[in-house]
Amino acid sequence: MSRVVVDVMLKPEILDPQGKAVHGAFDRLGFDGVASVRQGKRFEIELTGDAGPEAVAEIERAASTLLSNPVIEDYTLHVETEA
Amino acid sequence: MSRVVVDVMLKPEILDPQGKAVHGAFDRLGFDGVASVRQGKRFEIELTGDAGPEAVAEIERAASTLLSNPVIEDYTLHVETEA
Repeated sequence: MSRVVVDVMLKPEILDPQGKAVHGAFDRLGFDGVASVRQGKRFEIELTGDAGPEAVAEIERAASTLLSNPVIEDYTLHVETEA
Repeated sequence: MSRVVVDVMLKPEILDPQGKAVHGAFDRLGFDGVASVRQGKRFEIELTGDAGPEAVAEIERAASTLLSNPVIEDYTLHVETEA
C-alpha cells in the first residue's frame, strides 16, 4: 500500500481570512516573528496498490476536480514513502 | 524570509468523517484503487526572519497549543526551503 498526499492551498492572490485569523491569534498570544499565515487542506490518500504512473494520474485528476476548486485553489501532489 | 509548514491531522484512532465523505465521492465518481482518505489542515507560516532553532521552537509551541488540539490531533512541522 502506498500513500499519495495532496495539499490544497488558496491561490496567492485570493484573500485567506482563516489564515489572517490565525495570524491575529499568533500576535495576541505573543508569538513573534510571523509575517503571514495561509491555511489550506491536506489529503492523505492510501492506495490499495502501488503508486504507479497510472494511479498517480488518476489521483491528479481527482485533485484538480474533486479535491480543489481550480478557480481559487492550487494543489500539489506527492507520493509519500513511509519510513 | 523563510517558511515553516505545519500539517495537522486527526490521530489515526479518531474517526474522520470528512475523509470518509471524500472517499465515498471517489467511489461514486469512479476513482478506483483508493483504500482510505484522511483530511487535515496545512498551515504555511512565513517568518520575518530566519527559521533558526529559536523561531522553530516558537512555532512548535504554537503548533501544539494554537494550531492543533493535542487530544485528537497530531502535527508535523518542517522548514520549507523555497526553490
